[in-house]
Amino acid sequence: MTFNGAEAFVATLAACGVDTCFANPGTSEMQLVAAIDRQPGMRAVLGLFEGVVTGAADGYARMADKPAVTLLHLGPGLANGLANLHNARRAGSPVINMVGDHATYHLHFNAPLTSDAAGVARPMSDWVRVAKSPRDLAQAGAEAYAAAMEWPGQVATVIVPADHAWSPGAAPVAPRPAPPVPRAPDAAIGAAADALRSASGPVVLLLGGRAVRADALDLAGRIAAVTGARLVCETFPARLQRGAGRATIDKLPYFGEVAAEFLAASHTIVTCGTEPPVAFFAYPGKPSALAPPAAKIVRLAGMREDALAALTALADRLDAPAQPADIQARTVPAAGERLDAHAIGAVLAELMPAGAIVSDEALTASADVFEATRGAAPHDWLTVPGGAIGQGLPLATGAAVACPDRQVIALQADGSGMYTLQALWTMARERLNVVTVVFNNASYAILNLELARVGVQNPGPKALAMLSLDHPRLDWCALAAGMGVPAERVDDVAGFRAALARALAAHGPALIEAMV
Amino acid sequence: MTFNGAEAFVATLAACGVDTCFANPGTSEMQLVAAIDRQPGMRAVLGLFEGVVTGAADGYARMADKPAVTLLHLGPGLANGLANLHNARRAGSPVINMVGDHATYHLHFNAPLTSDAAGVARPMSDWVRVAKSPRDLAQAGAEAYAAAMEWPGQVATVIVPADHAWSPGAAPVAPRPAPPVPRAPDAAIGAAADALRSASGPVVLLLGGRAVRADALDLAGRIAAVTGARLVCETFPARLQRGAGRATIDKLPYFGEVAAEFLAASHTIVTCGTEPPVAFFAYPGKPSALAPPAAKIVRLAGMREDALAALTALADRLDAPAQPADIQARTVPAAGERLDAHAIGAVLAELMPAGAIVSDEALTASADVFEATRGAAPHDWLTVPGGAIGQGLPLATGAAVACPDRQVIALQADGSGMYTLQALWTMARERLNVVTVVFNNASYAILNLELARVGVQNPGPKALAMLSLDHPRLDWCALAAGMGVPAERVDDVAGFRAALARALAAHGPALIEAMV
Repeated sequence: MTFNGAEAFVATLAACGVDTCFANPGTSEMQLVAAIDRQPGMRAVLGLFEGVVTGAADGYARMADKPAVTLLHLGPGLANGLANLHNARRAGSPVINMVGDHATYHLHFNAPLTSDAAGVARPMSDWVRVAKSPRDLAQAGAEAYAAAMEWPGQVATVIVPADHAWSPGAAPVAPRPAPPVPRAPDAAIGAAADALRSASGPVVLLLGGRAVRADALDLAGRIAAVTGARLVCETFPARLQRGAGRATIDKLPYFGEVAAEFLAASHTIVTCGTEPPVAFFAYPGKPSALAPPAAKIVRLAGMREDALAALTALADRLDAPAQPADIQARTVPAAGERLDAHAIGAVLAELMPAGAIVSDEALTASADVFEATRGAAPHDWLTVPGGAIGQGLPLATGAAVACPDRQVIALQADGSGMYTLQALWTMARERLNVVTVVFNNASYAILNLELARVGVQNPGPKALAMLSLDHPRLDWCALAAGMGVPAERVDDVAGFRAALARALAAHGPALIEAMV
Repeated sequence: MTFNGAEAFVATLAACGVDTCFANPGTSEMQLVAAIDRQPGMRAVLGLFEGVVTGAADGYARMADKPAVTLLHLGPGLANGLANLHNARRAGSPVINMVGDHATYHLHFNAPLTSDAAGVARPMSDWVRVAKSPRDLAQAGAEAYAAAMEWPGQVATVIVPADHAWSPGAAPVAPRPAPPVPRAPDAAIGAAADALRSASGPVVLLLGGRAVRADALDLAGRIAAVTGARLVCETFPARLQRGAGRATIDKLPYFGEVAAEFLAASHTIVTCGTEPPVAFFAYPGKPSALAPPAAKIVRLAGMREDALAALTALADRLDAPAQPADIQARTVPAAGERLDAHAIGAVLAELMPAGAIVSDEALTASADVFEATRGAAPHDWLTVPGGAIGQGLPLATGAAVACPDRQVIALQADGSGMYTLQALWTMARERLNVVTVVFNNASYAILNLELARVGVQNPGPKALAMLSLDHPRLDWCALAAGMGVPAERVDDVAGFRAALARALAAHGPALIEAMV
């Protein structure tokens, strides 16, 4: 059998175990489309905008712990996907991008779509490779897979010149062995054990990355049992496995001064899978580092080290008991009268099925919903580690593709939802089990808070208009209907409970527009 | 009066004549929001996605011949706007981007939104500058304006660290004198005159950039009168002023082999404001250059030279008569029975008011609409010079902001419209006179054509599904309603004529979904 470059490339990825392609192709990618078409077992999922494609690849990777491949159209198409690649990179998600480019001999003609595709890729990729020949394409595929799988995951981008894709004479290459997972040094385990044993005040175990998966969280809870440490999750975890029956964990608040207050009494902070906390943004006169200056900070393991192994070693070193200190009970708070973030969280805690996956881009509503769902049936909580909004709906899409048997719930602020609303169409086409809850407050609410926080006094009407989504108010039911997703609007708690129950019972996507 | 960096920067831009800001701000841009708020005469137009913001700035620039300023949120926000900056750059549009970034001292903390903002800017900017201090911000503004105005226009990007924006002690700086417009060398005028005089076969005057504005087109028509040259416009002009009463001009076809056939008989091709034609994409076994190999090609002026001056000098040299050879009559073709691109063009030719501005991203429908409207009342025709789709609706938005007294008509393919549909919300908020005609064929129709053209035989269902927008079919009336734009669906010629007449008579935006 003979292969053209595209076929050899796709066959190599398939041999590595890549079986899902999120695609938004153009003319220069037609040979890649054809190669995916012919590759048995390779699923193709179309997105109508590249930010949907890359965000879905991130959601898929967080749930599958392996990369999907994206298919993107030259430099400008890749550019449209960069913001969610930024998030994927910060999440430590394995993602492989295949980006078509002009035929090598066509580049110097400077046709309209000519751009520096590798230059576009670099700021948001951990690894970039321009294929050098049809044969080299397959080699690039194997290397991209290995790069994407560097623990816990990286964004690897392959630029595919069209003539290399269509020319014959290529052949698939064998997958490379998976790169080893870097271990935290023994000295770090010892230092963490010493710090926890000798602490003369409150201790925080600050967890992030892979340290907030269920297995790691269980170990952290056992360490808490012997040390009295409080378990705290980084503000924007890639995938926190929490809920009833798991070790109790709090999340570091978003606003810097609130987070600093939260940590103020800490004598010792041990970090695992994350770094010492910093403010999301700088503010005039406020510190960037959030830990109290006098606190002792000990790094057990970074995001790119094996958090599970480090926690296992630390639990052994400390002779931790077999059970976590504090296991979350199944609890459902009272919803209250008003339809607000707390009420929505309370109803979610009541109705969310076990194994649900939550994509949280609710922004100003997040904290209350998160708190209200701490005793929900066990579930996965996915946030925006890179802070680039427009991730929520694509992430939910990709998670649902990876986990067809689990219920996905997208908690979506209205302003950020508009960046990549096209994801709703993919949910409808693929009949994905995603229930989207839009928090419609007709405002960039977070920015109204931030305006005062950065010291702007008495903003005028022009400034306020730049932060308002009113005039006209977005109608998310109409937007959903336009893309084939059934939707309903609710403005009270009973209505939300009924709508959520209906949506969870039905197969396929649904959207609930909550007027908050 | 004392200024912080943001205020001095915005005041400097205002002194240069910049009076419009297309904005999608975030926390790190709050001081810029406040500065715009306080700057008299500076209009702020909110877009709900950055591709809308940059595309609108392009549309504004093409009509106003001066830059608007965009307001974008760090590297990821800028990334979302890159595709339309690519188009703006190819259009030769003056655009100034102000991109917020973390405070300088905050960068090394590597907070979630940290990225290489300048690195993101470079591939799609002609000029990039990271402000070095509060005082330097104003200087950067004056330089950015000068860079943006380099003939005919450039994309200039200023990265604004938040602490430079909020710190006091800055002051506006005086505008720089406008850079001179480069002239084509005298030798080029002479060579073009000689080639036109001595040609022993068909001659094409291939026009683009500023050479297809009304004044330049009139000169080209006069040159045609004395030389017999055929006037041909580049395939994707930034702004072609055409229609009844102006010199007749054809447009080079999109598909390479059709364009090559169109030019096949040419003995001599003189280019002005553009370069010799090349295929949009490469295809196996097909040439990239489209002019016949034996043709004599003479470059009168490039895109970055003064096309009007070159044509004036050439007309003088040739003793061209006072009138163009061939003035387009006011004509309206018969619409025919079926609602297709020709019929839509015919109805447009009938109803489009004088001075209309057409944003053409109709893709497969473009050629027929363009042909049918050649005898419409005089109008401006704006296309996608960079080929990055998702430009049409934002471009129409910006053109309408620049020209509130003119009717804007957006001809929009359904697939490409989905990339930046959020522009409809800005049209509604600003009550812009934009009538959007969506060509709903439920398909990436262009890609179905391209699949065969790049040599893919017998595509399977996976490949075809990647090029189909059916299942579910997009409902553009619902999408428009969701963003506050009144819409109606039509499926026959009479319905389209009635809907277009209603939409043109009403004030504010409207959308017509044409089922073709």
